[in-house]
Amino acid sequence: MKNIKLTIEYEGTNYSGWQIQENAISIQEVLEKALKELLKEKVTLIGSGRTDAGVHALGQVANFRTNGSIPGEKYKYALKLLLPGDITVVDSREVDLKFHSRFDATGKVYKYIVYNGELPRAIYRNFSYHVPYNIDIDSMVKGSKYFIGTYDFAAFMAAKSEVSSTIRTIKQISIEKKGDLIEFYIEGNSFLRNMVRIIVGTLLYIGYGKIKPNAIPNIIASKKREKAGPTAPPQGLFLKEVFYP
Amino acid sequence: MKNIKLTIEYEGTNYSGWQIQENAISIQEVLEKALKELLKEKVTLIGSGRTDAGVHALGQVANFRTNGSIPGEKYKYALKLLLPGDITVVDSREVDLKFHSRFDATGKVYKYIVYNGELPRAIYRNFSYHVPYNIDIDSMVKGSKYFIGTYDFAAFMAAKSEVSSTIRTIKQISIEKKGDLIEFYIEGNSFLRNMVRIIVGTLLYIGYGKIKPNAIPNIIASKKREKAGPTAPPQGLFLKEVFYP
Repeated sequence: MKNIKLTIEYEGTNYSGWQIQENAISIQEVLEKALKELLKEKVTLIGSGRTDAGVHALGQVANFRTNGSIPGEKYKYALKLLLPGDITVVDSREVDLKFHSRFDATGKVYKYIVYNGELPRAIYRNFSYHVPYNIDIDSMVKGSKYFIGTYDFAAFMAAKSEVSSTIRTIKQISIEKKGDLIEFYIEGNSFLRNMVRIIVGTLLYIGYGKIKPNAIPNIIASKKREKAGPTAPPQGLFLKEVFYP
Repeated sequence: MKNIKLTIEYEGTNYSGWQIQENAISIQEVLEKALKELLKEKVTLIGSGRTDAGVHALGQVANFRTNGSIPGEKYKYALKLLLPGDITVVDSREVDLKFHSRFDATGKVYKYIVYNGELPRAIYRNFSYHVPYNIDIDSMVKGSKYFIGTYDFAAFMAAKSEVSSTIRTIKQISIEKKGDLIEFYIEGNSFLRNMVRIIVGTLLYIGYGKIKPNAIPNIIASKKREKAGPTAPPQGLFLKEVFYP
């Protein structure tokens, strides 16, 4: 028995998200089918976490156990021939049998891209959120500092999510302007459903001047979803990296 | 009568190219249909030149004459609602009635992106040419110098093209490495069919060590297509800008 860890890049545009569901094509399903074709054996992929429809990944991590004899580092070459162009395995290796992509993850970094030009741009459309308004970066940077730390982030979770605890730790947020693009990098130990997109939506509200940077502590303390900003759309979001000990 | 100049960005992935043709959807056709819907009048778009299937544009230029009363600068807003997301008008303005996008163009810059990592990448797949081999950038830069000037570029034209003259002027070629990406910028007065892609294909042959940088003058002098390198694939190519006096 081997335990294989895959690092996966995908464009989420044409998928219902990471996780298998009925009546829609998920990234997990496409990967499991390719693995079945390769191994002649049904395997179950354990992802580090879900990504929603339209969300991309540069470094999603997933593992599976197999009786197959293929060396771990060969999967990335073999799967290249069995996967569509919008799902690519950028690394593969054999890991300890106990390794679990979700339980063992100690942190994640997400990237969010805002395209801040006046008119929509064809090339960016599936990889950014188009915001044609003036955005005050300095205010957003000030606001971002209030998120750093361990808090109950219930106000930054999709309504109706079920989860045992809404306490999470945000380690770092950086915001960089590159021409017409604004890139957000958000690192935390783990994230609630839609948490990154709601944080970005709230930071953008600060950027527009709708709320003040120092409003963040009160929004967190309220634990009420409706106090935070809107959920930024999925196409700007990239799961950049998952950390393990 | 007004003459309107549009600057257009598009992702060419899902189109047969710029120019209208039977049994395939072109970018020109989609734009003309949107203009007809807007103006209730059939107009003919004159593009600065064709782009092939799969080739993108950041700044394609096209003009059309109309009896419509819409101010030139309003088209970019009005067309936003009538075009699919992969074709966007980034600028529009009224120009002199004599302006002609093709005849008046004095130069063009193309960008070509090579992704030079070992494994294919989902996010780049429609916007770059994946080359997994070692590429010697310095040799390519040396080779690129031999293209600068006015020459008969018949060796760098798609076979069977019909054109009155194959003499063209290349003004500048720059090659930049940005992480795993190699960006080529090629500026000239005008270009033969597939000329940029054959130049890139030939520069890559230099980069692989298949031919020497100083082989270029002989390839140009041969005027034979088969002496040059292969035509690099369309998805790495972007028409970046068209120049006018």
